[in-house]
Amino acid sequence: MTDHVAISDALSASRAMNAVFSDMAIVGAALKFERDLARSQAELGLIPAAAAVAIAAAARPEGMDMAALSREMQRAGTLAIPLVKALTARVAAKDPEHAGFVHLGATSQDVSDTALVLVLVEAGQLITALIDRLATALLRLAVAERDTPILARTLMQPGPPTTFGLKAAGWLAGVLDARARLKSDLATAATLQFGGAVGTLAALGENGPRVAAALARRLGLADPGAPWHTQRSRVVAAGTTFAMLGLAAGKMARDVSLLMQYEVGEAAEPGGAGRGGSSTMPHKRNPTASIIALTAAQRLPHLAASLLGAMVQEHERATGGLQAEWPIMRDIAEASAAALEAMVEVAEGITFDRARMRANIDSLRGLVFAERLFLTLAPALGRAPAYAAVEAALARALKNGVDLRDALDDDPAITGALTPAERDAMFDPMGYLGSAGVFVDRIAARARAEGISA
Amino acid sequence: MTDHVAISDALSASRAMNAVFSDMAIVGAALKFERDLARSQAELGLIPAAAAVAIAAAARPEGMDMAALSREMQRAGTLAIPLVKALTARVAAKDPEHAGFVHLGATSQDVSDTALVLVLVEAGQLITALIDRLATALLRLAVAERDTPILARTLMQPGPPTTFGLKAAGWLAGVLDARARLKSDLATAATLQFGGAVGTLAALGENGPRVAAALARRLGLADPGAPWHTQRSRVVAAGTTFAMLGLAAGKMARDVSLLMQYEVGEAAEPGGAGRGGSSTMPHKRNPTASIIALTAAQRLPHLAASLLGAMVQEHERATGGLQAEWPIMRDIAEASAAALEAMVEVAEGITFDRARMRANIDSLRGLVFAERLFLTLAPALGRAPAYAAVEAALARALKNGVDLRDALDDDPAITGALTPAERDAMFDPMGYLGSAGVFVDRIAARARAEGISA
Amino acid sequence: MTDHVAISDALSASRAMNAVFSDMAIVGAALKFERDLARSQAELGLIPAAAAVAIAAAARPEGMDMAALSREMQRAGTLAIPLVKALTARVAAKDPEHAGFVHLGATSQDVSDTALVLVLVEAGQLITALIDRLATALLRLAVAERDTPILARTLMQPGPPTTFGLKAAGWLAGVLDARARLKSDLATAATLQFGGAVGTLAALGENGPRVAAALARRLGLADPGAPWHTQRSRVVAAGTTFAMLGLAAGKMARDVSLLMQYEVGEAAEPGGAGRGGSSTMPHKRNPTASIIALTAAQRLPHLAASLLGAMVQEHERATGGLQAEWPIMRDIAEASAAALEAMVEVAEGITFDRARMRANIDSLRGLVFAERLFLTLAPALGRAPAYAAVEAALARALKNGVDLRDALDDDPAITGALTPAERDAMFDPMGYLGSAGVFVDRIAARARAEGISA
Amino acid sequence: MTDHVAISDALSASRAMNAVFSDMAIVGAALKFERDLARSQAELGLIPAAAAVAIAAAARPEGMDMAALSREMQRAGTLAIPLVKALTARVAAKDPEHAGFVHLGATSQDVSDTALVLVLVEAGQLITALIDRLATALLRLAVAERDTPILARTLMQPGPPTTFGLKAAGWLAGVLDARARLKSDLATAATLQFGGAVGTLAALGENGPRVAAALARRLGLADPGAPWHTQRSRVVAAGTTFAMLGLAAGKMARDVSLLMQYEVGEAAEPGGAGRGGSSTMPHKRNPTASIIALTAAQRLPHLAASLLGAMVQEHERATGGLQAEWPIMRDIAEASAAALEAMVEVAEGITFDRARMRANIDSLRGLVFAERLFLTLAPALGRAPAYAAVEAALARALKNGVDLRDALDDDPAITGALTPAERDAMFDPMGYLGSAGVFVDRIAARARAEGISA
Repeated sequence: MTDHVAISDALSASRAMNAVFSDMAIVGAALKFERDLARSQAELGLIPAAAAVAIAAAARPEGMDMAALSREMQRAGTLAIPLVKALTARVAAKDPEHAGFVHLGATSQDVSDTALVLVLVEAGQLITALIDRLATALLRLAVAERDTPILARTLMQPGPPTTFGLKAAGWLAGVLDARARLKSDLATAATLQFGGAVGTLAALGENGPRVAAALARRLGLADPGAPWHTQRSRVVAAGTTFAMLGLAAGKMARDVSLLMQYEVGEAAEPGGAGRGGSSTMPHKRNPTASIIALTAAQRLPHLAASLLGAMVQEHERATGGLQAEWPIMRDIAEASAAALEAMVEVAEGITFDRARMRANIDSLRGLVFAERLFLTLAPALGRAPAYAAVEAALARALKNGVDLRDALDDDPAITGALTPAERDAMFDPMGYLGSAGVFVDRIAARARAEGISA
Repeated sequence: MTDHVAISDALSASRAMNAVFSDMAIVGAALKFERDLARSQAELGLIPAAAAVAIAAAARPEGMDMAALSREMQRAGTLAIPLVKALTARVAAKDPEHAGFVHLGATSQDVSDTALVLVLVEAGQLITALIDRLATALLRLAVAERDTPILARTLMQPGPPTTFGLKAAGWLAGVLDARARLKSDLATAATLQFGGAVGTLAALGENGPRVAAALARRLGLADPGAPWHTQRSRVVAAGTTFAMLGLAAGKMARDVSLLMQYEVGEAAEPGGAGRGGSSTMPHKRNPTASIIALTAAQRLPHLAASLLGAMVQEHERATGGLQAEWPIMRDIAEASAAALEAMVEVAEGITFDRARMRANIDSLRGLVFAERLFLTLAPALGRAPAYAAVEAALARALKNGVDLRDALDDDPAITGALTPAERDAMFDPMGYLGSAGVFVDRIAARARAEGISA
Repeated sequence: MTDHVAISDALSASRAMNAVFSDMAIVGAALKFERDLARSQAELGLIPAAAAVAIAAAARPEGMDMAALSREMQRAGTLAIPLVKALTARVAAKDPEHAGFVHLGATSQDVSDTALVLVLVEAGQLITALIDRLATALLRLAVAERDTPILARTLMQPGPPTTFGLKAAGWLAGVLDARARLKSDLATAATLQFGGAVGTLAALGENGPRVAAALARRLGLADPGAPWHTQRSRVVAAGTTFAMLGLAAGKMARDVSLLMQYEVGEAAEPGGAGRGGSSTMPHKRNPTASIIALTAAQRLPHLAASLLGAMVQEHERATGGLQAEWPIMRDIAEASAAALEAMVEVAEGITFDRARMRANIDSLRGLVFAERLFLTLAPALGRAPAYAAVEAALARALKNGVDLRDALDDDPAITGALTPAERDAMFDPMGYLGSAGVFVDRIAARARAEGISA
Repeated sequence: MTDHVAISDALSASRAMNAVFSDMAIVGAALKFERDLARSQAELGLIPAAAAVAIAAAARPEGMDMAALSREMQRAGTLAIPLVKALTARVAAKDPEHAGFVHLGATSQDVSDTALVLVLVEAGQLITALIDRLATALLRLAVAERDTPILARTLMQPGPPTTFGLKAAGWLAGVLDARARLKSDLATAATLQFGGAVGTLAALGENGPRVAAALARRLGLADPGAPWHTQRSRVVAAGTTFAMLGLAAGKMARDVSLLMQYEVGEAAEPGGAGRGGSSTMPHKRNPTASIIALTAAQRLPHLAASLLGAMVQEHERATGGLQAEWPIMRDIAEASAAALEAMVEVAEGITFDRARMRANIDSLRGLVFAERLFLTLAPALGRAPAYAAVEAALARALKNGVDLRDALDDDPAITGALTPAERDAMFDPMGYLGSAGVFVDRIAARARAEGISA
């Protein structure tokens, strides 16, 4: 039941992340809370040690009736009510005298929020591994193609060249930006929820803070100092950063799908098992991985908005805002991970065609170097005359359908200012890449400083 | 696999609607397209009749490996590729010579869009049944409580009274508004998708339109006249109206949760199996059904936004926008249905306390009738003196902590204008309900005219 | 003040629509409500005729202190409070005895909602005019280019040809779909709001419904039968359909920006005053109008979501949901109109290059006709042998870098089945357009039937 | 023109923040970029010092024709084109020979992005000042009311008491969480954009990085090392955190509006100039400030989603995603600031009624202390008998409509276990506040550690 991604979800969800949010995983996390709560209370002498042993023995997801839990939680409005009932029944079946110590002093939201946090930590590790792999592949690509000229395209129109390495470095920078934020958001999110019925831990008398500290320690979470039942920024922040990561992958996917157009043909997804391809349409290389990432990118902004919108929570426990978080967080994590997985596949296996990149630059017949020509002529001719000369040469080139290079020969002012070799050099992309290489080096250095190595 | 709602979804998804979007249902709808395509082509003499029989025999979801389909579609970017492959293999196993007639002239999107439409029609029927049941219950409630006074609350502050019947009629009107739109949206959506590889049906030569007409007829769908591969308003419109219905339910849920506050105590959800309630907190009546509806209301606007955002689709088939529709449409349908189911339960079983409604009006000590008093005095005293007299009486009432009624006795201008009985009448809510009853009657008449009977 | 579009809004807002939502327009609409309310009450003998005359004379936006109204409404939480105060003061200044008849029996929301509806009607007319103009231009384009072959592109990869006319017809169909819905939504929205303090019109005694009917008639609006203070689907439906229209324009803009790529070069925006263009980058034709539409498309889904989310309104007047509608509705209208204006400009002046369209088809070297070849050979050779022959020819064409046409000559099975002339015909796009023309005709017929003529 | 908030915006926009995004401010920021670019280039000897002087003299927003800029930018698709033209014309009018040095080596997006960053820094300072003021007021409130009992309400139903101080501390914690994130986001965002035509600074030859460093220093921004033209996380992160802050204010506003209900009556907004209030409805205290915050809260999630959605930007300059950022960022900043301003007003002036808080606890007749009673009795009676005794007592209390305290006297098991004084003590809220005080102290300590003092 838990390792199947529904067909309606198959283009939208990472299978690995789907497992992180499986029934077994969620119920397991919730039971871990109950187990460690009992152990912490026993450790502090608040309940019998034997009770903690009995509860720990029963607090395993194996054998729980997930279908029943799912049905009953829809009636109860929370997983915790049927789950605590089921756990108590299990304990009671073996150790009736200890059943009363289950869930002592805790409230439903303590269980479900802490389970959410534990699942989120897992999700964060999966996402982090994907980012690191993506960043590694992009770093390698950026460094390798540091000096490979490719048309830059602004507003989807060709400009002077940039380098394929700088394109990759840009994708890398997008990932690094969100990665830095994720680390901090996950650290903040990895925090116990424990406040009892209304957030005062009153049922534990004076012992509340000590139980909280012990419980947090056992669960490997931070003790937040105070419950955060209706202050949701911890989980919301992590969710919005997941979304940003998926959208950074979406930006890369958009670029790849544009580069893969037949008319552009500069790069292609690796293909690979089951990907795109058609025997009767052998020219077609469908950007299937990019489509997965772009599908996620369609959903992520709105999922993040749902999380943000759910922050307006009433008093000490919300009606609606709280309960919406689970499916949203799962969808964000699954979609972000799907986008990252797809771009890992692309970054690691992308094929590209340096000759075609060069040919596409050449197809512009030198027009994209007009700015360069002007800048070169200006010192010699003066700015205004240089501008006029370039404009006239451009007009001649367009009118006669010739290369801008050839149109220069008709103007004695230009031929007087530049030797034929200098004129030729004007149209060599390698000479007009500006600081592209420096920018690649800097982004690569940043990646290495942040622990990415390739 | 298909009848289980994941725990992460259990507060957010209707179980009945979950089944409408199950793997079996989706694959079944897609195979119905293939079956009726073959039959239509056979009917027109384009393929052998035996091929249609063989394809129809194989085109059943039973026995399909859903897990494999889910995995392969994530690689292929569409369900259609692995599904057509599996169907072809099934046909080939029994009738090798007919396998080549599977999916003839169709494209992947024809299959998946028509399947989406078929599933949407089912979803629409389920939603319509829920609306009708909700409208029926609300109509009954509105009529029965037509003249029951209850405090109106504007900006969450008490005003003069309205009636509980008019509140219910308001909820009913919200449902009717969206219901009218849904009928028209579903009619528009129930349309075949069939355009072949690029929307020209070129593989069918001149026969495209005739095959389309036959196929639409067999599937019980309208023939749109032309494919609508990247014009998505048909499905988007239905989705946004689903969302509006769920949000109309959310508005009712908000009101119910406010009325259920202990301090207000005018109405309560029916409770019932597994709902809220606590033996150690017997005063608590958790608004669990309202929470389900409000949870859906948190998600629906954003899901609708995702659908709308997906409308910007590239050329003849989109990269991302198209592929995102399935999970979004499913989530909208599941959340809307969950909200409607919850409010059906509430509307059919709501408990309310007319005495408490009256007591809450009385607790305002007549202050909410100040406007009425002024309107009554104005003809007698003149508008300005009347206004001054009321203002002074209000000040006396507040200062002395007495009822406004009692504060009137101190002012000879008022006692001269109104007899004690008239003064008493000023504070009878039944006399200041304006056209509440008329409005209830009109909304009820509309509901009946639109086919709701109670 | 009112005819300036802020620089932060200039890429996002239609200037004409900005004027529809200007301070003068909103305050004017609100004062029209007050004027016609007084006239209606005078007509029914509820207030002196002279009072209605005095109020009508004062109820003009000219001379109102808009800055003060804006400031005070932020304090009061509604425009109506300072506006009614200002209007009352104006009346009082000339006719003190009539000042008390201003706003009689109405509530703040009656004024602001009816003003919203009146402004929405204006907005709807502006949008409708834009749609009609856009539809007219697209109809003309679709008909004129009915048979012009152009590469179809699915998943942004080339497929067999479609026609430029069918592309335009697709854009037209998208507009027509939303246009039909808009008509019905605007008719539903053009409805009076009038319920008094709490929706019962109690202050008017029994006269409420008669005043409402008269007031609606005077304002040119429908009488809804009952107030709809917290049932917002009327305005929300119109807003979401505005958004759908803008997004239909966005789909067209996405296609245009893709066609304008230098490497594709099949179509271009008209340019025109101030549009794109650069003297030093003369090859560049920036898709500036498309950018305006795509900018709107970024915002519209979320604006629609905001409207939908605001539907959960508390009791008889909402805290937050109601008050958010004005800016959202304005933004939706401004963004949708900006998108439509931009696409009107494009549709009326688009330049395109039929030769380039053909050259792009040819650049595929016949590969996109492989499906056609197979379908033609299958009857002669049998399906399986035909498939094998085509696959082998494709492999030869790719391996040798020759046209698929030439690769056919090497296979005696093919040369036996097809004459050289038949083989040539396989690669004529005009012969493989399927029902593209029929589909154009049908969409054109629909447009004409719906009142579009070109 | 720049200090007026449109009426359609008045409930949604902070007036102070509106000024931060005024035409003067935006154009001023863009001109500051041009001024400091020229100065930096002069400093490095790349342009004549006199040119930098001439450009700096002209680069002032005063006297620019904002209406013309607004119109022309809608045609050009960017503010930079008409602005650079206007600036160049100004320089040329006085110093024709220097006009050619305007905007040297820069691209339109360098100007508009750096202007966006400069405006964002201003916006961040305004928001930060509001947060600090809000945090200060909440800290004071939390400390002062540390031990004031108030009913906790979970799922909008009463539970055992918490303290008003802990409620305030919760609001404070929500603000502090987002404040910490904002600091880091603003630091990341305060970064120069400078990449030239396509992000390589090719027009500056080898000098690009040096100019960038000098320019960043002059503008008081960080040098990012490489341009970030289509990697938008810097600005998106700041925007989403603005939204989180506004939503933290919205959570507080929801609570306040609930506490202000007449039937609850525990707290109220301060009122103040122009706020709510009605002479004929003197009992009404409209939550006007809360409404402003909740209005913002309706819009903020969707605005954040728009920003996130705009992250998928094409190649080296986007079509639509980029251009949408300005209005979205302005709306987020204005709405967040409006929400914070409103809650500052409330936090600094909130009135509350400790007696009413206590009376509301008492109105529950001891039922909310049932858990406490059970916990007290369990050690003496055993858990199961204690549970049964409490359940029976609750049933008696409900049946007889008496206080739970009185229902205890009927059960000898209970009277045997607890003295009358102990029984009385069970129902003293002060004795069942658990760790509320500790939690307040910890949140207060955190606030102080983070620089908030009260």
